[in-house]
This record gives sequence, structure tokens and C-alpha cells, in this order.
Amino acid sequence: MFYIGADIGGTKIAVGLVDENGKILIQNDVPTGVGRHYSEIIKDMALLIQKVVRESELDLEDIKAIGVGSPGAVSNSTGMVIFANNLYWHNVPLRQELQKYIDKPVYIENDANVAAFAEAMCGACQGVDASVTMTLGTGLGAGIVINGKPYPGSHGVGAELGHIVIEPDGLECTCGNRGCLERYTSATALIREGKEVVLNSPDSLIFQFAHGDPERITAKIVIDAAKEGDSSANTIMNRYVHYLALGIVNVINFIDPDIIAIGGGVSKAGDFLLDALKKEVGKKVLYKAVPYAKICLARMGNEAGIVGAAMLGKHS
Amino acid sequence: MFYIGADIGGTKIAVGLVDENGKILIQNDVPTGVGRHYSEIIKDMALLIQKVVRESELDLEDIKAIGVGSPGAVSNSTGMVIFANNLYWHNVPLRQELQKYIDKPVYIENDANVAAFAEAMCGACQGVDASVTMTLGTGLGAGIVINGKPYPGSHGVGAELGHIVIEPDGLECTCGNRGCLERYTSATALIREGKEVVLNSPDSLIFQFAHGDPERITAKIVIDAAKEGDSSANTIMNRYVHYLALGIVNVINFIDPDIIAIGGGVSKAGDFLLDALKKEVGKKVLYKAVPYAKICLARMGNEAGIVGAAMLGKHS
Repeated sequence: MFYIGADIGGTKIAVGLVDENGKILIQNDVPTGVGRHYSEIIKDMALLIQKVVRESELDLEDIKAIGVGSPGAVSNSTGMVIFANNLYWHNVPLRQELQKYIDKPVYIENDANVAAFAEAMCGACQGVDASVTMTLGTGLGAGIVINGKPYPGSHGVGAELGHIVIEPDGLECTCGNRGCLERYTSATALIREGKEVVLNSPDSLIFQFAHGDPERITAKIVIDAAKEGDSSANTIMNRYVHYLALGIVNVINFIDPDIIAIGGGVSKAGDFLLDALKKEVGKKVLYKAVPYAKICLARMGNEAGIVGAAMLGKHS
Repeated sequence: MFYIGADIGGTKIAVGLVDENGKILIQNDVPTGVGRHYSEIIKDMALLIQKVVRESELDLEDIKAIGVGSPGAVSNSTGMVIFANNLYWHNVPLRQELQKYIDKPVYIENDANVAAFAEAMCGACQGVDASVTMTLGTGLGAGIVINGKPYPGSHGVGAELGHIVIEPDGLECTCGNRGCLERYTSATALIREGKEVVLNSPDSLIFQFAHGDPERITAKIVIDAAKEGDSSANTIMNRYVHYLALGIVNVINFIDPDIIAIGGGVSKAGDFLLDALKKEVGKKVLYKAVPYAKICLARMGNEAGIVGAAMLGKHS
């Protein structure tokens, strides 16, 4: 059998046809067109799914189920997107609406939980009961898998690790609180701190790598400068690792998963980040004489959204 | 059928015979005698269990199983207490040792998880999938129940919410980190801050209620002074509620349970604490337009250890 995975983003909706092994056979996307009524957006998704199936030369009968990853708070039991800020959705009957066009089982989960499920089924977190995937990008997305299933929480608002408060008097967050973990551990945090550094240290490699233009500073530039031994960049990275390690230790002290996988743009720093992180976590973990979660890099990259959503249909 | 629940503490081991409904029919205890070899301590526990059964005039055949709550990191799958700091235990084969004396199924869990399980089966958290019980005493003990079962984590080191770092540059904790949640939200925190206040504000009701002796300050005295409108005590309570609300919001943002129950000595403040806490959580929660965990008082009190342990046997 085959499975459809759909990933609703703020910019585009990506749809893929996926085989039993989590391999994407064909994929396509359409603009989300945020701001339109949900019925129009979901209709576009349905048409795209039909198009992808047609192009695959398979029949709808070969498709077992459709899985959808949506931003925000999601309930698979009711089939509703409860609240998705960046889509302006509130209590949207996603399953019911999609089934108007395609008569298949539809499973829905939060997009970060879908990415974590992709790692659990096909990536870095295979073969264990409990895993957490933290995606370090514009924000910090996180997904939890427990007993081999995505864990959305009782009201669909769980796994929001980016908004774990880690500095109660710290930086303001878009959520209204101060000191949320993602303010210190996202790619955005590295860029922000890189820009601050070049104001005071114009001789930093960060400035050089950005060709003298602070607006061109990326997370990669800060990381590359740190790898080259630039002291300002290393100060930023040490602070970054300190906070990310605190976040990881909180995850360990809280749900003690088998594996914690780190994905997203910042994770491209690879072992440079991972080695520092493991060392810092080792210092901060509560039970130092007891085994704890393995920390590794996520593997699914940009395919996580489609593959994870498709696997919802396989493993439901 | 009947069940044995045993609760290993740093001072005493309590054992009770419990019926199907979670009612303790008879109970007794012996000193733990910390520092002795584990085989001696577990033998005392076994003898006490046999004594309790004899005194109940039931037969061992009427007992379906034995549940044991132990401090520290515990693995029910292996039957081992992996690490319990205050018992000086490391990799203790609790199940195997206990079964030398009594040939019954033995289930073991961390004591805070056992207390949470008691609330889930017989107390404040009945009838829901996911709940967290936070016990505010000398420290902050916490237990997680997911899918109706205690959730110990993959290595038995989960649910250590007392050691979630909430102030990275804050007060030193016995665990070696700084700013752990329990440093701000235990009964000990209220006592510490009460003592600090009376040094500077000898006219505080706290001082009066302690009969002029800082060493007699208890959490109850600080709470009672706050209830009477004492301004220093209210400052302490506001700070306490601020941090506890942060901890609770972190729980919601992380695993989004159906219910969060608050137990332990500080919870005797009742609605005075609960109302303030709910208000503060409402301000800090991420998804303000979506339902989230109900916050309530725990109900099992001192019986939680025995009843929760006994229920491990019933629901396994």
C-alpha cells in the first residue's frame, strides 16, 4: 500500500506519495494562500493530493490513508485544527473538509510532532519507545513520541518546548512571556547575537563572513566563525550550547526519552555542536551515574513533514 | 482480591493491605535503617508484609500482587532500583530480593510516580488519560501518568520536575545545578524566605506566629500570615505563586495533561493558593484560546504511597 503525507506550512502546502518504507515517490506543492477561508485552502490541498496520485499512475485505491501535519494545536481524535495562529485557523474541521473531496481515512497531528514521528519511524529515533525531536530553525519546534506514537497531549497543546520558560526575567517572546527557550536556542538567536557582536567587534570573523553587512549574518556564518576560532563567535556558541543543554536536561528530567534528536538549520553544525552539547548535558544532568537519553542529529531533513504525515496513516 | 502496597522512605517503610477500591484495610511500618545492606532492608519489608497479611486474617492466596514505591530511579521492567541517593542504593534487585520471601508478582515504581498513580486511580485525577501530580514538601516531587499508567521514562529518571531549571543563575541546588524549580516552590522555600523576612521585618506576622523564634517558622505560618494580609508574607507568596505557575505552565507546554494535581504540605493552603495559581497560569499559558489542564488539589494525602503502590498490582 501507499500513503499520502501532507505538510501545511505558512507559505506552501507540500504533498507527497510515500511507500511502505517511508520513501517519497512523488511530491508537489501549492501556495497556502494564508488569509483565505479554510475551505478554500483545504480544497487546494485535496486537489493537489488528487494530482499527485494521478501523476504517480497509481489509483486512489492503492492509497491506504492520508496524514496531515498542521501548525498549531491539533486534535486527531476530533479531526480538528483547534488553533493555528499563522493560518488564522480556529476550530477548523480539517478531516471532515478534506473527506468531502477524498474518501480516505485522514490522520492529523501538529507539524513538529509529525517531524518527530518521521524520525521515530524512518530516521534517527527508530526502534525505541520514547523520543523527542527538537528542530532549531526560526523558532524551536519540538515533537514527542511515546510508546511509538506521536504524543500531542490531552488538548493538542503539548510538546511546545520552544516556550518552556528558561529565564523568567529574560528576553521577551512573541508568546507574551519572557525567557522562552526558543529565544536562546533558535537559529534566530544566533543571528540576533551575531548582529550584536559585530556592532562592538567589527574585527570579528562574523563581520568578515557577512561581507561587512550585518543583515547578511546567518546562523551558519556564526557557526563557521566559531569553528575558525573567532572568540566573539565562540562566546555566542558557548552561550547557545549552555541554554540548549539546559533545555535538553529539562527534557531528560521531565520525560526521560531514549533518544533526543536535534534537527533544523542549526543542526548542520554537526559534531561541532553535538560534541559541545553532550559535554554540557553531562555536567547538568541530574542522575550522573545512570544512563540517560542518547543525543544525536536528526536525519530526515526537509522530508520529515511529508514522510512523518504519511507514516501516521501506516501506523494508526 | 487484595493488594499489598509498600512505600520505602528514608525514615520508615510503610506497608498496607488494600482492597479493590483502594481502601487501606490495615497498615504498619518499620524503620528503614538506612545504611544497612539492601538485603537486610528488603528482608524487613518482606517480614512486615507477612505480618500485615497475618494480622488481616487473610491468606497470602488472597493477595494478588505487591507494589513497591521507592525513591530514586527505578525500573519496573528489570525490577531494579537503579539509583536511590538517600538509601545509598545502586542497582538493587528489589523484585528478586523480595520474591525470596514472598512468591507474588512485584511491581515497582518511583515513589512520586506512585503518588501520582494513586491520584489517577483513586484521587483527584481519576478518569483521564494524562495527569501530573506535584507534591510540594521538603522538595518538589512529581509523578506523571500517561495512558492510565505511571510514566517512569525510558531509564527511570523522568518526572523529576523539582529539578527543571527555571533560573539558570539562581539559587544553588543539592543536585549541583542552579535555579531548580524546587528551590522556589517547595515548603522549604517558603520557610527559607520566611526566615529572611523576619530578619528585616520583625513586625511581620510571620515573626509573631513563630513566637519570635525564626527556627519555628513553617510553610503554614508563612501562608497563614499571608492570609491575614501581612505584606511581607504576601510578597513571599506572590513570588512562590509566580514560580509555581511557571513550573505548571512548563508542564502544560510540555506534556499538556488533562489534570495537574497539587499535593504535599503547601497544598493545605487550599483555595488561597489554588485561586492565585490558576490566575497566574492563565496569564502565562501559551494557547490562551484553547482549553488546557485543570489545576486542582491532590486528595490522597498520606495514603498516596501505599494506595498507589497497591494499585500498581491491580492495573498491571
